Formats: sequence, structure tokens, C-alpha cells
Amino acid sequence: MRATLIYGAGDVRVEDVPDPVLREPTDALVRVLRSCVCGSDLWPYGSMPAKEKGRRIGHEFLGVVEETGRDVAGLAAGDLVVAPFMWSDNTCDFCAEGLQTSCRHGGGWGIPGVDGGQGEAVRVPQAAGTLVKLPVAADSALLPSLLTLSDVLPTGHHCAVTAGVSARTTVTVIGDGAVGLSAVLAARRLGAERIILMGRHKDRTDLGREFGATDVVAERGDEGVARVRELTGGDGTHAVLECVGLRPAIETALAVARDGGVVSRVGVPQDPEVPMGRDAFMRNITLTGGVAPARAYIEELLPDVLDGRIEPGRVFDRTVDLDGVPDGYRAMAGREALKVLIEP
Amino acid sequence: MRATLIYGAGDVRVEDVPDPVLREPTDALVRVLRSCVCGSDLWPYGSMPAKEKGRRIGHEFLGVVEETGRDVAGLAAGDLVVAPFMWSDNTCDFCAEGLQTSCRHGGGWGIPGVDGGQGEAVRVPQAAGTLVKLPVAADSALLPSLLTLSDVLPTGHHCAVTAGVSARTTVTVIGDGAVGLSAVLAARRLGAERIILMGRHKDRTDLGREFGATDVVAERGDEGVARVRELTGGDGTHAVLECVGLRPAIETALAVARDGGVVSRVGVPQDPEVPMGRDAFMRNITLTGGVAPARAYIEELLPDVLDGRIEPGRVFDRTVDLDGVPDGYRAMAGREALKVLIEP
Repeated sequence: MRATLIYGAGDVRVEDVPDPVLREPTDALVRVLRSCVCGSDLWPYGSMPAKEKGRRIGHEFLGVVEETGRDVAGLAAGDLVVAPFMWSDNTCDFCAEGLQTSCRHGGGWGIPGVDGGQGEAVRVPQAAGTLVKLPVAADSALLPSLLTLSDVLPTGHHCAVTAGVSARTTVTVIGDGAVGLSAVLAARRLGAERIILMGRHKDRTDLGREFGATDVVAERGDEGVARVRELTGGDGTHAVLECVGLRPAIETALAVARDGGVVSRVGVPQDPEVPMGRDAFMRNITLTGGVAPARAYIEELLPDVLDGRIEPGRVFDRTVDLDGVPDGYRAMAGREALKVLIEP
Repeated sequence: MRATLIYGAGDVRVEDVPDPVLREPTDALVRVLRSCVCGSDLWPYGSMPAKEKGRRIGHEFLGVVEETGRDVAGLAAGDLVVAPFMWSDNTCDFCAEGLQTSCRHGGGWGIPGVDGGQGEAVRVPQAAGTLVKLPVAADSALLPSLLTLSDVLPTGHHCAVTAGVSARTTVTVIGDGAVGLSAVLAARRLGAERIILMGRHKDRTDLGREFGATDVVAERGDEGVARVRELTGGDGTHAVLECVGLRPAIETALAVARDGGVVSRVGVPQDPEVPMGRDAFMRNITLTGGVAPARAYIEELLPDVLDGRIEPGRVFDRTVDLDGVPDGYRAMAGREALKVLIEP
């Protein structure tokens, strides 16, 4: 089959790789119907040292089950399923607590010996725990929105949930990428009535407004902080959803948090340190969030996607086939595309 | 009257200062019955640059109301009262939320124009909001325990509450100072059944065991982390109460937190950065806590002190009069005393 490999910064290739086969009785094979490129794929795409041997990439996909191992209960060939961006047994104590990203028998896609999602097919470890059946046909118009259940929608939701977003909280969302826009959607879904979106790409913040943002702040740094404070009577917001991962974003997040407020981050931190010294301490700011246990949220979010109450798939603004994946990376890295859908 | 001033590192003096008088209609004058030296007083005592003019110090006291301004409702001369370590109106929106440390009309003791607690008397701003009446006589044996309501007991309690301590959480407490021991007491009071105390002063950790610690880890750094992990099946604890404020303590705290766990800090951070990069992110570690809104907790904790269910005053192991305050500082800084009580 064909699959995507990354060899280094700016070097993504689609190549022939061995067809996946069942290795463990808990595996399933899934033929990929839709995959996509993630903002987090852009970190290695931007900076990974060049390697002789590529590694598989992609961690968001939905598809059709083709074969299941003998220990995979509840799934059968022909089932349409979505995979969260990490696989997990969904039975260990961490999974039972809703922290499938720390599953005792789980892991990530594209690590050695495990397929990536940007290919024609995937061997899914711990398939019974990992995959969630989708009650739609393979030609459903909902596939793009359902695909966001892999990552961006539950990631935005995790950010909002851990930040304690409710009807009583004011919210700032930092970042107008697909995760930031999903966080807007999630915050609105949880009842937030005041959502300030910080982003400077008008087409994206326009979509953010449709997703529920009540205010948009295009300024960055100190000016952006001043603008959010001005919009909130000087106080900042109860919840701040940091959806970028870079140092200036977390600095802004801390600065626009109301005293006693919560900064939740779901952008992979690119800095080993967080500036939470005396100021954050004296203002009782909490830092929470982290890699989203997407699997924990899929059943909760699925009904809203199925009945069209939310349309998270609107974050996809470009579609490519497998051969177009390298172009898709270029477009996303160059900010020409918000999020690229892949139809293998 | 006489009061304590700090002039620089190692230089604390007790001097004659003007008697306090009412300045605002919301003020009260309190004659101090008991005060004490705080671990946080040791930061300036350890490093403050020498000044020509001293500044008042001390932020924990209880005493008798001598005079009240015309807007001070609910208090009268003769009332025995305790003051939390920051003053607040207790009516603004932050106070209503239980964050009196961010009161819109509040502040700290010992700032310019405001008395410190280590003296014979104190002008208390926002007295109706700040002071809490104590239903005991001025010669009550409970005074030391009641004095801990100013700071160390609610600070330990804030640490445990914000960390989400309950009967279902395992707990590590880092630091065997008065706040750490108070955090042990608070965690036990909130129902925690497994409390690991990290500290290396046996007399202090012995008191910690009496306060509720089930395990003591004397090792520090990597060895200490390994020991806590060994005690918890490799996982670390759900809640980590960081009661020191130095970089190695927060590093240890993050390392002994279970995935999905919470580190709460109440030791004033001495480092502007917190090492919460990718590891903390991938393990969904939350950092919370901050300066404790002691005022928010006094009514809740008071009954347990009054009926002797908890004896937080046991952290005092030395008593001095006002003239003995400089010696008290020396003893605490030199770890000869755990916490020094002052009887002016």
C-alpha cells in the first residue's frame, strides 16, 4: 500500500510500504477513508533533522474495518470507525479515569512498528478499546466532521473542560488554527456566552465567529493583552484556552487570565519552561490541560456531530489525495490552508 | 509602641514606632496578643538588600480590638480577633468568590503606611471584612492553634483544597516546615488516607506523622522521587502539595505526580520559571495553588480548632517576647526552631 513518511523538515514523501497485517489478537486492520494533516505534524515538518530512513506520520483517520484479531470484541469487517489520535485498551485504570493518553497498554501512531494515519490502511493496536463505531455510510457528508473526532474537536473540548468552561465563565481562546477554532466551538457548546478569540487571520476568525466567538482580538503581545483586558473591564477572563504551544502564546494566556482563573493548554509546548513565577502565584492562576484523551470524549461529542448541532468539519478548507499530501503540508505550513483533508 | 522592622538580610530590629491611630472609618485598632514568624519572612531575612530605613514586618496575629472606625460593623472594643495574612473588604466580587487575596480594596501587612503584625498593636484596614471574632478568652490555651488561622493552617488547607484532596486521592507533601505540616493536617482532615511526607528533619516529620502522614521520605532529588514512586506502585500520587517554593521542590513535585494529577504550590516561588514542558503536558499534570486566601477558610477551620479535633498550634516550638524577635528569626533561619511564637 501507499503511506506518508516524513524524512525531515520540509520533506514528506508518499511511498509504497508493506501492507499491514494482524500481529496481535487485539489488532484490527482499517482501510482509511479520510485522514488529515494536524498542526502538530507541522512541528517535525518545520524542524526535524534529516534522516536516511523516513518514519510514518499521521494520527487522525476514519475508515472501514477490514479484519479483526480474535480478541477484538464488538467490531466486525465492514464497520465504519474513527480512531482517536492515540490508541488505548480503554480498560486500564487510567482509561477508566478518562486519561486514555496514559493508558498502560497504549501508544501513539507512527512510532516504530505502528502505522501512521496518512496512508491507505492502518493496523490498529488495542482495536476494541481504540476504535469507535460511526453509524453512517461510507459516503456520508458528515465524514469531515466525524474525522475531527480523532483529534481537533476533542482537543478543543479537553481544553475547555479542563479550564472549567461553563455558562458562568468568560473565555479567551488563543490561536485561530483548527484547534483554536475547535476550542471556540467546544466552549460555546459548554455554554460560554463570552468568548474572545485571539487570532489575526480574518478568514479563520470569521469562522471562529460562526463557531461562537463573540469578540476577535487581532493584536498580539502586550497590545493583545491590553485589548482583552479592555474588553473585560480590566480583569481578563476566567478561562484561557491556549491552542498554540509557543512561548508568546503562554505568556499572553497568563496575562489575560483573571485572578483565580485557569489557563488550559493543548498546543504542544515548544518551550521546556512556563513563566509562572510570583505574578501567577499571587494571582492564583492554574495551569492545566495537556495532550487530550480524545477517546474519552468521542461518545459525548458524537451525537452533536451526527445531528448537525456542531459542524467541526468546517475547519477543513482543502482536500488532497495521497499523492497530494506533500502539497498539503506545504499549504498548511505556509498558512495557505487551515487544515488539509486527505482522501486516500 | 514597639514593633519589628527589617533592614536587610539578617537584620531585624525591634524599635519604637508611632502608636497606630484610626485613619479611615473602616479601620480598627488591635492590640496584639500573639504573633509569629513565617517561613516567608525568611525570604527577605535571607536576601533583602540592606536599607537605611527599615520596613515593618509580620503578617500573622491575633489580638483584642481596642477601637473601631464608624464604618466597622460587627466588631467592638474587647473582641478577640484573628487577622488573615492579607486584609480585604470581604464584599467585592473576588472576595465573594473566596479569593480575598485579590480583593479590590485589600492589601498586605507591612507595606508602606500599613502596620506589620510583629508589634504591640496594628491598625487594621477594612477591619469588618478582615477580622474574624474568636469565641475564647484572652488567656485561652488555644491561642497558638487559633493564631495558625492567620496563615499556615489555611495555607496548608488551600494547598490541599486546590489539589483536590479527598478520601480517594493519594497525597505527597513536599516540605516539613510549618506549612508542609499544616498541609498534612489539612489533607488528613479532608479525608486522605495515604499521605507521603517528604522531609528530612526527624523531629518535624515525627510531628507530621502525628498530623496524619502515613509515610515519610527523607531522601531528596532523584532518590526521593524514586522512593515515592516505589511507595505508589511506580505511579506517583494524585495530589502533590508543594510547600517550599524552591526550584528543586517544584521539580520533585512534578516528578512524583501521577499522570493526570495535580501539583498545588503554596511556597512563594523563588524561580520565575516552572519546568512544565512536554513531559508535564504529555502526562496532563495541572499546576495550581498560589497565595492562600486565608480569610475564605477561617470560618470553616475554626470549629475544628475550637473543639481540639486538630491542633495546628503544635508547629510552634519556641516562644519569644518582642525583644526576642531577632533571636526568633535567627533560630528559624538556622532551622533550630520550626516556627516561633511571639508574645508581645
